[in-house]
Amino acid sequence: MKYTAHINVMPLKELLDPQGKAVNNSLHNLGLSQVHDVRIGKHVTLHLEAANKDEAQKLAQDACKKLLANQVMESFDFTLSEG
Amino acid sequence: MKYTAHINVMPLKELLDPQGKAVNNSLHNLGLSQVHDVRIGKHVTLHLEAANKDEAQKLAQDACKKLLANQVMESFDFTLSEG
Repeated sequence: MKYTAHINVMPLKELLDPQGKAVNNSLHNLGLSQVHDVRIGKHVTLHLEAANKDEAQKLAQDACKKLLANQVMESFDFTLSEG
Repeated sequence: MKYTAHINVMPLKELLDPQGKAVNNSLHNLGLSQVHDVRIGKHVTLHLEAANKDEAQKLAQDACKKLLANQVMESFDFTLSEG
């Protein structure tokens, strides 16, 4: 079966996020002062072939741990949908 | 009221995504050959102060259009949650 994984990789909450800070300031400069606590990470979508949802889950987790997320500095979460 | 916006900014489907292509190949090299069509974009979370959900929606859309997404090359979507 075919699955689509939607993966978010974000910097850990305990760490500074200079890119997010810069975007926060830029949004304020653009007049959007109601915005705060901006954090920026990666969004990855990928398609998977797997026998069932459990296997797809394992594959997506593998991809995150082996390559997509650096777990020293980043956390990840994902959702799976069919098709 | 306080809202949290979860924003995804992705390269348009019509465009090549060399970063996604490279990650696709790397995943194959790591033995995850069931994976294909990897695309990589940005995930942004930000907190908003707004009177109601409509206003929060407008603010998030503004932030995307003015700064976060380059609509020539990228599409965006977002979800809002309270708190």
